[in-house]
Amino acid sequence: MNTELGVVYQHIERVDTEVIEKLQQFGATTVHEAMGRLGLMNTYIRPIYPDVCVAGSALTVLLHPGDNWMMHVAAEQIKAGDIVVAAITAPCTDGYFGDLLATSFQSRGAKALIIDAGVRDVKTLKEMQFPVWSKCISSKGTIKATLGSVNVPVVCANALVNPGDVIVADEDGVVVVPRLWATQVAEKAAARTALEEQKRTKLASGVLGLDMYKMREPLEKAGLRYV
Amino acid sequence: MNTELGVVYQHIERVDTEVIEKLQQFGATTVHEAMGRLGLMNTYIRPIYPDVCVAGSALTVLLHPGDNWMMHVAAEQIKAGDIVVAAITAPCTDGYFGDLLATSFQSRGAKALIIDAGVRDVKTLKEMQFPVWSKCISSKGTIKATLGSVNVPVVCANALVNPGDVIVADEDGVVVVPRLWATQVAEKAAARTALEEQKRTKLASGVLGLDMYKMREPLEKAGLRYV
Amino acid sequence: MNTELGVVYQHIERVDTEVIEKLQQFGATTVHEAMGRLGLMNTYIRPIYPDVCVAGSALTVLLHPGDNWMMHVAAEQIKAGDIVVAAITAPCTDGYFGDLLATSFQSRGAKALIIDAGVRDVKTLKEMQFPVWSKCISSKGTIKATLGSVNVPVVCANALVNPGDVIVADEDGVVVVPRLWATQVAEKAAARTALEEQKRTKLASGVLGLDMYKMREPLEKAGLRYV
Amino acid sequence: MNTELGVVYQHIERVDTEVIEKLQQFGATTVHEAMGRLGLMNTYIRPIYPDVCVAGSALTVLLHPGDNWMMHVAAEQIKAGDIVVAAITAPCTDGYFGDLLATSFQSRGAKALIIDAGVRDVKTLKEMQFPVWSKCISSKGTIKATLGSVNVPVVCANALVNPGDVIVADEDGVVVVPRLWATQVAEKAAARTALEEQKRTKLASGVLGLDMYKMREPLEKAGLRYV
Amino acid sequence: MNTELGVVYQHIERVDTEVIEKLQQFGATTVHEAMGRLGLMNTYIRPIYPDVCVAGSALTVLLHPGDNWMMHVAAEQIKAGDIVVAAITAPCTDGYFGDLLATSFQSRGAKALIIDAGVRDVKTLKEMQFPVWSKCISSKGTIKATLGSVNVPVVCANALVNPGDVIVADEDGVVVVPRLWATQVAEKAAARTALEEQKRTKLASGVLGLDMYKMREPLEKAGLRYV
Amino acid sequence: MNTELGVVYQHIERVDTEVIEKLQQFGATTVHEAMGRLGLMNTYIRPIYPDVCVAGSALTVLLHPGDNWMMHVAAEQIKAGDIVVAAITAPCTDGYFGDLLATSFQSRGAKALIIDAGVRDVKTLKEMQFPVWSKCISSKGTIKATLGSVNVPVVCANALVNPGDVIVADEDGVVVVPRLWATQVAEKAAARTALEEQKRTKLASGVLGLDMYKMREPLEKAGLRYV
Repeated sequence: MNTELGVVYQHIERVDTEVIEKLQQFGATTVHEAMGRLGLMNTYIRPIYPDVCVAGSALTVLLHPGDNWMMHVAAEQIKAGDIVVAAITAPCTDGYFGDLLATSFQSRGAKALIIDAGVRDVKTLKEMQFPVWSKCISSKGTIKATLGSVNVPVVCANALVNPGDVIVADEDGVVVVPRLWATQVAEKAAARTALEEQKRTKLASGVLGLDMYKMREPLEKAGLRYV
Repeated sequence: MNTELGVVYQHIERVDTEVIEKLQQFGATTVHEAMGRLGLMNTYIRPIYPDVCVAGSALTVLLHPGDNWMMHVAAEQIKAGDIVVAAITAPCTDGYFGDLLATSFQSRGAKALIIDAGVRDVKTLKEMQFPVWSKCISSKGTIKATLGSVNVPVVCANALVNPGDVIVADEDGVVVVPRLWATQVAEKAAARTALEEQKRTKLASGVLGLDMYKMREPLEKAGLRYV
Repeated sequence: MNTELGVVYQHIERVDTEVIEKLQQFGATTVHEAMGRLGLMNTYIRPIYPDVCVAGSALTVLLHPGDNWMMHVAAEQIKAGDIVVAAITAPCTDGYFGDLLATSFQSRGAKALIIDAGVRDVKTLKEMQFPVWSKCISSKGTIKATLGSVNVPVVCANALVNPGDVIVADEDGVVVVPRLWATQVAEKAAARTALEEQKRTKLASGVLGLDMYKMREPLEKAGLRYV
Repeated sequence: MNTELGVVYQHIERVDTEVIEKLQQFGATTVHEAMGRLGLMNTYIRPIYPDVCVAGSALTVLLHPGDNWMMHVAAEQIKAGDIVVAAITAPCTDGYFGDLLATSFQSRGAKALIIDAGVRDVKTLKEMQFPVWSKCISSKGTIKATLGSVNVPVVCANALVNPGDVIVADEDGVVVVPRLWATQVAEKAAARTALEEQKRTKLASGVLGLDMYKMREPLEKAGLRYV
Repeated sequence: MNTELGVVYQHIERVDTEVIEKLQQFGATTVHEAMGRLGLMNTYIRPIYPDVCVAGSALTVLLHPGDNWMMHVAAEQIKAGDIVVAAITAPCTDGYFGDLLATSFQSRGAKALIIDAGVRDVKTLKEMQFPVWSKCISSKGTIKATLGSVNVPVVCANALVNPGDVIVADEDGVVVVPRLWATQVAEKAAARTALEEQKRTKLASGVLGLDMYKMREPLEKAGLRYV
Repeated sequence: MNTELGVVYQHIERVDTEVIEKLQQFGATTVHEAMGRLGLMNTYIRPIYPDVCVAGSALTVLLHPGDNWMMHVAAEQIKAGDIVVAAITAPCTDGYFGDLLATSFQSRGAKALIIDAGVRDVKTLKEMQFPVWSKCISSKGTIKATLGSVNVPVVCANALVNPGDVIVADEDGVVVVPRLWATQVAEKAAARTALEEQKRTKLASGVLGLDMYKMREPLEKAGLRYV
């Protein structure tokens, strides 16, 4: 399936809520590790306010520079628990999204927006508790003149997002979990989390990673010299 | 009137306080829309601490890279309610402004500083509640060696600022309202705000922008396909 | 002494705790001024959470892009009060450091990390109150494959750091004080601070910098015109 | 098909040479227009020397920061006329590719490399006439420690590339044509080129775009005022 | 006069050709010095091919992100010797200008384009010898949907440009000379050039700047120590 | 030895010309490899014109933003074969260096300038064949007001440079070879070059790196799957 213009795919497969909730509990970093370190958006995508962590099904929207027409088309396709992922066909810093669209998205059940461009009305978005991860913040509005698409594969901040993929976003960044991998990734993340808890206890007690991970020998073999 | 060096214009026209207060209430984004989407500074200009919104008359100052001499000249020209807008003749990240200058500016009645360079002592500025929008934060001080100007037209973060223009700055960014437009912009912003309130109620109730803005027909004409 | 690979210097000279504590009280900006405006890291290095100020002895670590092996080697060398300064041999945004390493570093007595790359688990780091100044935040983990060094001279964010130098870091940035200068810098910083207190009082009372610093004459000589 | 690690897909579908040659003749900009303005890589990807234009089948390779191991795996999969497209799992400026790999790639029939990272030995690459489009130029070499993949979908400079897609690259940039669209895009590009030739003649004779495109009426309707 | 939307000013004052020719001979750097170091565009504006130097009267055009409609309106206003200066209301990398518009501009007598965005068809522009200074190069085309203005004051790459100002552009950058200053700047530039010729001869013979500029004494006074 | 202000070290140790010439023949990339991949300046430092390769002894100069006073002090210290390395105490894009200083430097025997800021008069520099590697090109001149230093350790584009180190610069970038390592690095570079010649012949004949470097087994062990 290619990225194409002028199309709205209305029916997309989504991952079970239970799996999504688990991924949300683990957070972006643990999920990213569990995926083998794939699917992370570029680090310039940042939350507009701190202390946020969400996971949800990606509803994708493809837009043009300075044009947010398709945001309104996307709103109608939102199902409860969705996270809208907005990609732009070329770099843009305009404010594609503000309190009105947030009100609409929230009333449809959307949990968050991830956008490779700007947002505005951030004070109100914070009050509404509608989290956004964006490239920047900008008062600059957009026009409604050109067709993009909804629920086609998009590239957002250098990450491929297929509609229905699971988005996990927190202060560490935004990770995209392919839909068919979600269950397995949740399992791996759970295993990893259990393991990390044990490691944390050891490290807190003063045990060194050098010993816990048995690194002294490979370091010596690699030629490390202590002076 | 051109940007020139070595001059201090002492008498500038300012907008009525009442109009400025209105613009402050609307905030940067609504004002920017009411102006027809002109006059926004580049999005790299950010407030040094959150939850701030000010409006005031622009007192402009033109400085050289690494030299804040004219800041002291500018201080004397401040009238209560002014916002100092500092432009640099070439890109610089130095910290031109800290707690001492802020103390002086605040004692003269300045409400804020907008600067296309760095500031420092941000902890103290926060405690003093003297808001600054800047390109960056830097401990690096500056020298006092070369003449710039006060109250000449300047370009700050890619926006033209004439002395006496109204600056509206909040978490969404910094907007410059030409002095002679201020009253009209305030009126348009009021009208827009009233309208938005109605829209918000509708959207919150689940009405779609597609229907509220009657977009379905133009989208169909443009060739949008639903699959 | 050159920057070299594959070596761990175990014995470094550190500055007396008393001097370090004084430097911490003055903060990055005052210390930077007291040093003659040298030793400031690039302004892209920012704290991952606000309201932090630390000073400590630099324990340096040199790493390769995408590889945090030497972080574990560094952990063993930490003495109470150290600040780990991590430099990378080429630009990288990966998350070299998270809650596990922070647990280990904290248990060894480290006060902070300065890194010219990314960190992760920032929510937990905040909860642990382990401050980090970094280039970015990233979920992306790293491998353990290539030798770097510990306690060699490194360049971090365009500043030279020798092991044992004093790092002073707060919201204004990160300053490096050469070990042998630390006492003298602390004295100069104290003198400066006393002086600034007097200036602040004057400026708050409305006295202008123009008069306090006797700038009117040099400005006139330089040709400043008042219109 | 998802982006995955540790896999080499040996058999990919390629577009007919004849179609690729046509796309090469049209160049990146005409092809990009013919595609409806999709598929352009970010503008920071630039040719390392001027006056180059190529088209070929994408052989994709996914690499990690600072690690070019999979480049050697990719070399074996090259068929005559391929363009290797190298994506990195996180931003990196290292020089993944130099004259030795270029010799190998060229001997296997590769026409070019597109890489979202650095290259080196650019003087020799120019002499060999092996064109590269890259993010930067860097002497910094890479290690061979971690598995990536060959011929999985990758995101390179914010563009999705599936193996077998056609890459068209020249001084205007790099465009990705989905494999199944290639024939149709070539036809549209041909039509567009014919049309442009006529327009060019008219415009050269002094006819205005305002008249040729019949813009005067819509501009007037939009409210344009002549003063 | 403010920057406004939806207006075309048809009659602008231009500087005498003779003065413009002189400014062109001096080049951007000498002119910038003669102006007192004002009016330089940001250094990210670069020529798309080397060995170019032009000067001409600024015909300004204000555009929106992703929309080049007003370029066609601007074409009609071009007088022989003009340099079109294109500003965008918010950052954009799209290719606003290619060989067709260049053909039109060139047939109307334009000497160059300066644009704070992207251009395309750079190979053809080079063949046509139509020089462009731009922020980037991009195949991405633009739409024609929203009104901007022609011959209003604009800010291009952080420099204020009034219609009729003289643009001097070469490999050193782009300088804007206010219309009313042009003659005086040309005179100062001539004086400077004569002076520089003498200095060059001295320096070539081995005389040091330290002696020629009599710097030894002020350096000593400033406290310079020779070791 | 620390970076300090207000000092000129007149006597520095330099590496034998013969060794420097060898390093120049190998070029930046081979030398960087021979050094173990240390000492590379950031990739934003680029030559102002193509086809250049030089090596020489580093004469370091430390400057302040917008101030090139110490360039003249540095000129007097130049010995034939030196490369001046100019570092700035904070980021700056100003044009610190133009044709006059180049004339002076060249007459003293300098081979090149490396500067972490801007240069100007690039057309003349090209004609003079005085190569410069810089961060940018800018017409903006500088003042002469504040003391820096000559021949102290500096950090230039994130690389540490001690006076007398060998600089190797070409189109691949700028590498710093510590003075005491120069002979050994030249030997390693020679060995590497010989080895590479053999590899190139093999690869040109179609032998794969997979076989030549015996990578098939480790790749299989790492789990690489062929599909």
